[in-house]
Parts: sequence; C-alpha cells; structure tokens
Amino acid sequence: MIDERKAWTQSMQQPQQFASDNYAGVCPEAWAAMNEANSGHEPAYGGDQWTARASEAFRTLFETPCEVFFAFNGTAANSLALASLCQSYHSVICSESAHVETDECGAPEFFSNGSKLLVAPSSNGKLTPEAIRSIALKRTDIHYPKPRAVTITQPTETGELYTLDEIHAISAECRSLGLKLHMDGARFANACASLGCSPAEMTWKAGVDVLCFGGTKNGMAVGEAVIFFDTKLAEDFDYRCKQAGQLASKMRFLAAPWVAMLESGAWLRHASHANACAQDFAHRVESLPGIKLMFKAQANAVFLTLPSEIAEGLRARGWLFYTFIGGGARFMFAWDSSPERVTALVEDLRALTS
Amino acid sequence: MIDERKAWTQSMQQPQQFASDNYAGVCPEAWAAMNEANSGHEPAYGGDQWTARASEAFRTLFETPCEVFFAFNGTAANSLALASLCQSYHSVICSESAHVETDECGAPEFFSNGSKLLVAPSSNGKLTPEAIRSIALKRTDIHYPKPRAVTITQPTETGELYTLDEIHAISAECRSLGLKLHMDGARFANACASLGCSPAEMTWKAGVDVLCFGGTKNGMAVGEAVIFFDTKLAEDFDYRCKQAGQLASKMRFLAAPWVAMLESGAWLRHASHANACAQDFAHRVESLPGIKLMFKAQANAVFLTLPSEIAEGLRARGWLFYTFIGGGARFMFAWDSSPERVTALVEDLRALTS
Amino acid sequence: MIDERKAWTQSMQQPQQFASDNYAGVCPEAWAAMNEANSGHEPAYGGDQWTARASEAFRTLFETPCEVFFAFNGTAANSLALASLCQSYHSVICSESAHVETDECGAPEFFSNGSKLLVAPSSNGKLTPEAIRSIALKRTDIHYPKPRAVTITQPTETGELYTLDEIHAISAECRSLGLKLHMDGARFANACASLGCSPAEMTWKAGVDVLCFGGTKNGMAVGEAVIFFDTKLAEDFDYRCKQAGQLASKMRFLAAPWVAMLESGAWLRHASHANACAQDFAHRVESLPGIKLMFKAQANAVFLTLPSEIAEGLRARGWLFYTFIGGGARFMFAWDSSPERVTALVEDLRALTS
Amino acid sequence: MIDERKAWTQSMQQPQQFASDNYAGVCPEAWAAMNEANSGHEPAYGGDQWTARASEAFRTLFETPCEVFFAFNGTAANSLALASLCQSYHSVICSESAHVETDECGAPEFFSNGSKLLVAPSSNGKLTPEAIRSIALKRTDIHYPKPRAVTITQPTETGELYTLDEIHAISAECRSLGLKLHMDGARFANACASLGCSPAEMTWKAGVDVLCFGGTKNGMAVGEAVIFFDTKLAEDFDYRCKQAGQLASKMRFLAAPWVAMLESGAWLRHASHANACAQDFAHRVESLPGIKLMFKAQANAVFLTLPSEIAEGLRARGWLFYTFIGGGARFMFAWDSSPERVTALVEDLRALTS
Repeated sequence: MIDERKAWTQSMQQPQQFASDNYAGVCPEAWAAMNEANSGHEPAYGGDQWTARASEAFRTLFETPCEVFFAFNGTAANSLALASLCQSYHSVICSESAHVETDECGAPEFFSNGSKLLVAPSSNGKLTPEAIRSIALKRTDIHYPKPRAVTITQPTETGELYTLDEIHAISAECRSLGLKLHMDGARFANACASLGCSPAEMTWKAGVDVLCFGGTKNGMAVGEAVIFFDTKLAEDFDYRCKQAGQLASKMRFLAAPWVAMLESGAWLRHASHANACAQDFAHRVESLPGIKLMFKAQANAVFLTLPSEIAEGLRARGWLFYTFIGGGARFMFAWDSSPERVTALVEDLRALTS
Repeated sequence: MIDERKAWTQSMQQPQQFASDNYAGVCPEAWAAMNEANSGHEPAYGGDQWTARASEAFRTLFETPCEVFFAFNGTAANSLALASLCQSYHSVICSESAHVETDECGAPEFFSNGSKLLVAPSSNGKLTPEAIRSIALKRTDIHYPKPRAVTITQPTETGELYTLDEIHAISAECRSLGLKLHMDGARFANACASLGCSPAEMTWKAGVDVLCFGGTKNGMAVGEAVIFFDTKLAEDFDYRCKQAGQLASKMRFLAAPWVAMLESGAWLRHASHANACAQDFAHRVESLPGIKLMFKAQANAVFLTLPSEIAEGLRARGWLFYTFIGGGARFMFAWDSSPERVTALVEDLRALTS
Repeated sequence: MIDERKAWTQSMQQPQQFASDNYAGVCPEAWAAMNEANSGHEPAYGGDQWTARASEAFRTLFETPCEVFFAFNGTAANSLALASLCQSYHSVICSESAHVETDECGAPEFFSNGSKLLVAPSSNGKLTPEAIRSIALKRTDIHYPKPRAVTITQPTETGELYTLDEIHAISAECRSLGLKLHMDGARFANACASLGCSPAEMTWKAGVDVLCFGGTKNGMAVGEAVIFFDTKLAEDFDYRCKQAGQLASKMRFLAAPWVAMLESGAWLRHASHANACAQDFAHRVESLPGIKLMFKAQANAVFLTLPSEIAEGLRARGWLFYTFIGGGARFMFAWDSSPERVTALVEDLRALTS
Repeated sequence: MIDERKAWTQSMQQPQQFASDNYAGVCPEAWAAMNEANSGHEPAYGGDQWTARASEAFRTLFETPCEVFFAFNGTAANSLALASLCQSYHSVICSESAHVETDECGAPEFFSNGSKLLVAPSSNGKLTPEAIRSIALKRTDIHYPKPRAVTITQPTETGELYTLDEIHAISAECRSLGLKLHMDGARFANACASLGCSPAEMTWKAGVDVLCFGGTKNGMAVGEAVIFFDTKLAEDFDYRCKQAGQLASKMRFLAAPWVAMLESGAWLRHASHANACAQDFAHRVESLPGIKLMFKAQANAVFLTLPSEIAEGLRARGWLFYTFIGGGARFMFAWDSSPERVTALVEDLRALTS
C-alpha cells in the first residue's frame, strides 16, 4: 500500500480524492454536537452526560442492553476487543485480508501480549464456516495456540458484504467450536445501509458477541465504539481501556458526535451516500476497455484492475489512490463524496482507456 | 481519589467546578483551528499539512530540531515515551506521587511489557539528585531491574515546580549514572508561565531527553505531544505509536489545535490565567481559620488541609473537588476559570470557617 | 544484596558456605530418581509416566485432587501463577520484602504484561488482614489497577512463619475482598517441617488457592511445582507454561525427583535438617557480644546484625554470605548443611566477637 | 501433530521409538558431568566454575570470543534471542515450516510483546534470498511491522540442510536489507555432522549473528545455549533471561553437561550416529512399494509418505510416530538409536508393504 505520508506534499494542490475515506473531515452533525458539547464544565473520563447519552443511544439503536465503550481509533478498538476474548496463549481466526492481520503493525499481538492470528483461506476476504472449522481443528496439541475467537470484517476490506445468512452460519460454527465472534465494523454503517437490515439483525441477532463500530470513517473526527452484546465479556473492560491509553479525559468530545449521529440518523444517511457514489462509479467504469472490477462493489469501496499505464495516467492527472502488488487500485468513497468529483474521475478514466 | 464517574449525575446541576482542569472544554483558539482544518480532504495518518506545521511550530518554540509525535492522551504519551527508553527488564525512577505510578492503572508497565517503576522518596513530590542516586545504586545485581530512566513531573502532581537549577542538577546526576531523563509535562505550559523561562531552558537546555507536552489540560479536546530532544531516541517511534493504537487517521484534528495554540501564544496565555486564578485563590484562603496550604501554589493547583466538616459543607453547597485519604482537598484551575466562581468558592470557604 | 556472580572466583577455594541454599547440589533421593528415570524412551512434554506419578504424589500429599504443573524455576512458577490470577490491569498485593517484588527483575509484570504489585506495609515481611484491606480499599477508581490477588511467602524471605491462624485470617480477608490467595513456597517444605502441620492444613484447608512448591532449594537440580487447589484457575495453564518457555521436553527429569522426594519423605526430612542447623546456629550465636538476631529463626534462615568489622573478619576467614544496606547478614542452611561447618562458623564468630 | 500426551499410556509397553528425539534420555557424557558437578557447594545463578568453563568451551569450539547464555529449553532460547533483535513493532521473517511459527504456541510474540512473524514461501522449508527480499520489501509503510530479523532453522524442521553457500547468500541479503540473522539450531550438531564443516564456518563465518544451539536433542536433560557472535546484541541479555524466568539458580547442572559434550566431542559423535541411523533407515525403505521420501534425509529426520493402511499397520505393531494432515509420517533418530530397533522398523514396513 502506498505510504500516505509520502503523498501529502503532492496532495496539497488537490481537490477531493478517493484514496481513503479517512481523507474526509468531520460531518456537520458530528461537528455541531462537539460544538454543543463544548460548553461549560463536564466531569472527565466518561463521567459526563454525553457519554451516558451516547451509550444509551447505542442501546436504543441495537435494541438491547449492550455494554458500550469508546476508544480513540480502530487499531485500539479491535485490538482491545480481541484481547478481552483471549489470553496470550490463545489465537484468533481471521481472513488473510483482515485489517488486523495486514495493517495494524502487530497491534493485536501487542495488546494481547501474544495472541496469534491464524489466517484462514477465504474467498474475496470472506471467511466461511468450513474455513473456520478447518483452522480451528487443524491442531489440538499444546504447541499450537488454542483458538478462542473469530474476527470478521463487515464490510470486508475488499468492499464486500457477509449476508445475514452467512453471519448466522459463521456464528453457529463458532458456537459449536466454543469460539467467540468479533466483528470489525470500521465501516459498519456502510454495511447496514447496503444490506438494509437493522444493526441488531447484523450483530447479536446473528450471533456476534462483540462489535467495533467505526465512527471516524462514518464522519467523526476520532472515536470508535466497542459494543459487547455478551455483557459478561465486558467485565473490567474499562480498566483495560484505561491501562492501554484509550480512556479520554474529555470524553464528551468522543461521545457527543455519536449522540448526534445516532439520534439524527446521520450515521446511516452518510453511509448510504458513500455507498451510492461507489456503486455509481463502479457501474460507470466497469465496462471501460481494460478495466475490471476486482470485487463486487457492495459498500463504499471499488477495486479495479488497471493497466499500469492507466494508473500512471490517473496519477499524472493528479489523482491519489492506493495500488497493490500484482496490480489493482482501490477507490474509497466517503460521507462527503462529491458527484462532480466522481464524474471527473470517471471522465479521466474514460479518456485514458479510449 | 473520588471516582469522578460517580459524581456526574450530581454535577449536571452545577456551574463551573475546580475538581479537575479536565472538566474544562476546548479553548477558542483550538476550536477555531479544528474548524479551519475541517475543510476538504487531507491525507491521513499524519500526512496532512497541519501535522507538518504543528511539528514545525514545536521546533520553533523549542529552538531546536526536535522530533515531534502526537498521542491521544497523557497515559499513552508518557508510557510510550518511557517504553522507548527502556527494555522490559529495565526500570524507571520516579517519585512516590508521580502520576505514572499512582494514576495510570499500570500503563507504563503495560506499554513497556514490564519495566518496573522504582519509587524514590521525595519532598513534596520532587525528586532530588541524592534520591535518584540512592535508588539507582541500591542494587546492581541481575535480580533487580536495571535503572535506565528517570521521570519528573513539571509542575509536580502537587502543583509545585522544579527550578531550572534543580532540573540541571537532576540531569547532571542522570548523565553520571547513564540514565535518560523524561519530563511529564501534562501541565508544562503552567510551569513555563510560572517560572517565566523559555520552553528550551526548561527542557533540552536543562538536560531533558524527552518531554510529554500536555495539550488537553492546556485547552485542547484531545492530544499530547511527545518531543524527543535526543533525536536518536525517536528511532521507529512512529511504529511504536501505530502498534499501540496511538496513530490518528484524521491526525489534522490533533495537530491543528497545536498550530493555533503555539503560533498565537494561547498555550502560555491560558496557562498564565489558570496559574493566576490558583494563586489568587490560595492567597485569599490560606489565612482562613482551620485551613492550611499543603503545598506551595506555584502552578494551577491548590491543595488545602480542610477540616472534614468544612469539606462536607462545601459539598453541601454543590462544590466538587478531590479529597485524599488522611484529609486534604485539591482545587484545580483551568484555562477558563472564572474569577466570579473563584470568588464564590472563597466566600463559601470563608462562611464555613467563620 | 551481593552479586553472587562476583563472588565465585573467591568461592572456589572454599568448602561449604551458608550464603544461599541454592549453593547446595542435588540430594541423593532426587539424584537416584533422575538416574532411574534415565532409562529407555519416554514420551516428551509431560506425556511420560514420571510426570503422571509426580502429579499423583502431590494429590496424595495434599489429600485433594489438585491440578499440578511443573516449571523450571521459582521466578517462572510464581510469575505464571500470579499471571493466571490477573489480567494486565489488575494488581497483586504483597509485602515490601516479597521476593516477587524485590528479586525477580520485574518478572511478575513481564509474565502478566503489566499487573502491578502493590506493596503493603508489613511486620517482619508478614502481611496482615488489616494491611491487605487498607491497600485493597485505598483506591476504587479506574486509574488504579484493580486488586485481584494477594501473595504471601511461607516461610517469609526473612525466615519467619505465618501461623495457620494467620493464614486463615488472611484468606478470610481475601474472600471478603474478592481476592485470590497465592502462596510463594520456595521453601514450603521448611515451613511444614517447622510448623509440624500437614501440607493440606497450610494450604487449601487454610484458604490458599494456588501454591508454588519449591523443589530446587529442597534438594533438586531444577524444577518447581505449581499447584492449583481451586482447579478452575488451572484452565489452559498448560498452554500458559508452553508459551512462556516453561514446558520441558524431557519432563521426566523434573518430575522423577518429585516422585522420590514425596514418596520417600525426603522433602520433609531434608527441610527438618536444614531448619535444625539454622536454629542450632541461631541459638549458639545470639548471645555473642555485638550480635543480634534480626528475625526469629523459624525456618532455615538466620539474619544477624553484625558490626561491620565482624563481617569483614568473617569474609577474611573465607566465609560467603549476603549483607544488606543498613547492615545485617543472612545465613541460609541447606539440606546438606554439615554440623562441622556450622560449628566452624560459630567458632569464627565467637573468636571475632570476643 | 499427534498430542504426545495422549500417547503415553500406550507407550509404556513399548521399547525404543522414533517419534521424537526428545524421547531419548541423557547420554553418558552429560550424565557423568552432572554427577561430577554434583559435589559440594557452588555459587548460584551462573557464578559457578562450570558455567565459566562451558562458556569458554563454546568460545573454543566457535573459534571466536562470542557471548554465551543458557536457557532451559528451545522455546525460550529462540524467543529470547529474537526478542533481543526486535522491538514489539518489528517483525521476523521465517519459513512457513519454522518451528517458531508452527510449534511454539505464540512464544516469540509473547517474549517480544508482539513482534510479528512474517511467513515467506519456501521450498522444503528453506528460505531463499529472493523470498526474504520479497517479504522484506513487500510493505514499507507504518501500518506493517518493520522487518528486523530473519530466522533459519539448521537443519530444517523437515530434516534438510542449508549449504554454507546458501547461508552466505542469505546473510548477504540480510546485510543488504539491514536485517539480523538468527539460526535456530535445535539440532545444530546434526547439521555440523552432516555438512562436515566447523561450527564457525556454519555460523559467524557465514554471517549468522545469533545461534541457539540445542543441547536437549543432542543428549542432555535440559538446556540450550544462546550464542551471540555480534556481541553488541548481547547487551543486558542476562537481565532478559532473568526476567523471563530462564536464569537457573543451580546453573551448574545446565552448564556441566555442555563442558563434557564439547570437550569430549560427544556433541558431534552422537549427532553423527543419529544421522547415520536416519540415512540407513531412509535408504532401506525408500524403494518399498507405496513409500516415498518426502524430503532428502540429510540429518536425523526421515519423512515418508505412507498409505494410511500402512500407518495403521505400524501403529498396530506398536510403533509411535507423528503424522501430518495430508498424510506423511515423521521418524526421528536420537543419539541412542539402536540399529536393532531401526531394523525392526524396516522389517515391519517391508512386511506391511509387500
């Protein structure tokens, strides 16, 4: 993946990009909430009214008395959630494209003090009950870390979705194997918007034990929510967050945006817009000569196989995007994607491929 | 210390409190900068223009080409900085009132995977060269973790200050013992404002190797700066931050406030105001019957010995503050302390003690 | 404490010393068992007949179906046992002279990834229910690691003993506080021999949850036993040992000596002899001019306050022993202590003090 | 891999097996040395004369002033050595069949607090400069753990050997990439015996920085040596061993066997015998119908593809051996392999395949 830090000097001369949904700023709803929260004094470390309201908003959204915690970013949210499921000598089954495996610099192993990630073969980054079972039962001796949890990313890192049936099948397999099920929902809102199901249906009703619900990519400045549906797993999780440097003193600024996003429905509205932009883009470029969709564009990501000269051409025209060894380019659509910029990208692709 | 989370239901009916400088919100300068930064797209993970400008602003402020990193909070900033100085079998010398020892839930040991904190006797929470030497040389056998660093808090947790001469003496001792010197500057701005010296004079010119410069208590929403004056110590620190869940994707919202605070001088102005409120408060209550200053009020904290009935009385009048086993109450003054509220507190104390 | 590694060149010219009970070799019973075990092939990693027999021998000795594991040394045995009781954000209450606090180079924090040791004031290194309670309830906020276990050393590092009543009182306090009780029994056999009670009476019948039973100081080459009386706490402990490098491939050589020691009663016989030598020595020197017993000589250790010139004199005559800052010398008596050497030491002390 | 612990009840009725070279006991030379070392008192923790002699014997054997340390087993020796090369956010490149990856229950990640193992494609478990380079340069962004070391196993887990030229080529690649080279020598003696080169030629002269030299499989009861040829890497390694529970108090019993093995040449003699038995066995069975050698039998291991009914037949006749998913059986030959038992196994195979 391109080191984004190297890209910025170039990007300053640039309008909106589709390199990452992390390039977008804060959405109006989240901003207004931070502004409203920024009045007077509030107790620190989550003792404020906003944190209480945000937790309540999650319980309402998920239609269940779940336990809710806030972390600063996804690296920590996912790593802390997995660490709460495992001891250091346990292991976590994931797909080979799982973000925790490929892009967290060993954070899951660091937070858990050594829990190994066991990579299962997957199709387009999606785990299957069979793959989970084969890895879980591959070894039962003491020399191999004991499988204790499974993590799935919804939507996947390649922008595809697990259907509700697929999640049900995976959780059934997990239960039969005595494994806990974690969902990395860095773009959870995009999945809900695309599947058109309720957050409850996609999580605890489908057998998910712990969810990391991403706020940053959804339009916030900082902050993810860790949601325990199996509340026994949340025991002392507040201490875990504190010790790991994830307890905000002015928590209201992480919590208030969630209140606004959830209560106003912006979380879903923004995700739907991003998905629509991605799907519109995919639809308009998939038939261009030399271009192919690498994966179904089911959320807010579009992966294209691009002849290298086309990629060069796009860069020459000032576009930023990630490319991968073996070819392939990723385009991500954020809450603020502008139809004009999408069209501009389509036009440039059309021009370069004709 | 009172569990602040238990206090909030009560605190909602309350105006400004002096329980913690974390109760204050975001100052206008930091807010305006976040607002300005919230336009258009910026590369993620510190590749943005704001992060570059903030780092540059620190180098200007400190008059030296230091290495600058940003962490979400003080727990992480201090723990990561100490972990970069030590291996797990090394130890860190601190005072018995050091925040890393008393209020981080084992975070330094967690981030370093076991570096032990060695508590040295101190006077009013201040370490001395003699105390450092006695601890550092107390044991030299392999069964005792090898001392590798010293951490001092400036101002101390009790609101007192190390003079420049004292810091020079400590760093000289550290050098002679082969120890690195870390400064926990959660309220670094208050120290600069009180001593009237330059940031450079209080740090690298006095022999400090690494500083954690607190932004949250200075008026920001979130974010501390870790500043390496001995730049060799910063090797791969960016990887350390990433793995430990301290790399913000939308880094601009941590960096932009620093740009505004440093370039506008607000960092020092706000600290001076907080210090002045604390000292005014101390001056007006120290002679009240039954009340004594526990420590010199040199920064933005005032510690009072209060007869328990007075403490009860204050709470009955709606005041929130921390109390300690053995008596003693802490009053902290933030960037936004209102003279009217300070006077109201003084009046209540006068009424209760007369 | 003197670095023993520095002492050896000197010690080569020397007969038996009383510096440490680790200076002694392997007792005849343990040696014979290793010899017997060294015939033919045995399955590795504890699958051998000796490991099964040793575990059974412990269950017989303790009159209960406890779970038994073997570790290479006391550092690992105690650290792994404590790690199995705590998460990284929990804490362990110990006395200020606890070996885990003073002589393990941060091993407990390393194995647990950060569990903090909370030092309670003690009298002669013995914890009391009051001291435990005061530390356990000192802080209940999230900024302080949550107490989860208590560790006591029996006999203590200063050679004194907890009576059965004292252990009962401590375990009752632990239960009322929701804390688990760990016993560091590096010299457990000496405690049984001295109190004349059964291993069961001193452990699970007195409320101990986990015991580390020392084999090395009892006359073995290597190997300690970790014994879980609360067998639920032993879940996956075999994985914990494996991951931490404490699973011996040729386990029979750790297990066989235990079989011989326990089945022959040598474990208790050797400890009784060591205790007798220590008490005889204490009795014969306590009234010498300028010499005082620092602690009651209840096990196999004798601590003396010695004028420095006497200490010099002893060293000049070739004796090795540990001394402590502030004065004081430790003499340890092993399973093989020779009465002649004890007398020789007494004579030299008498000569030097007259 | 079969859980050996499940096999033992069966194995008690059995003569010598070829399931693992860990099933063998202690060789006469090692035993005699322990016996000789078991006289009188010796300073603890490596301060004894045997530890000094053993370290000197290694320096003589390797013809260089290397730093030598002793650990209890291979899990710890390899994990500690790798941890000394890496910080938690670094990574180690290994082959997919590396023992540290497949059979250490996450020990490397535990000891390093998170250093990730990066699995490179290999041919028969052997890494190549190209494979190392491709993994090392695959990612250079901060989201991926920074490669810092390479580990190779000599002989490999499949019983094959790296030639001196191959090791030279790998170390040259490592140097050009700024990576340190670690050699897992659990069966190092077998490699020396098979290649007929000197220990120096196979290690530091070929660019190896750190070697773990296995003693247990070579005929000792317990104990591996960690040898640093780049002595700067050994800084404070003694503290690392102590904290990790790998410092033996009665170190003489780990060190004395090494003195005898190295000074008498038994280390090489035993390895040669084991290799000869393996190669004789391979030669006699490779042409049997339905049987194939899976890998070249270059050391003391022989891997056979066996029709499952043949495997059943062998078990029915009382033979123990490891089998693998996808078929394949491993036969290991220890220092004490008896030609009669080898012949018996060959005869049974011949009978079952005819």
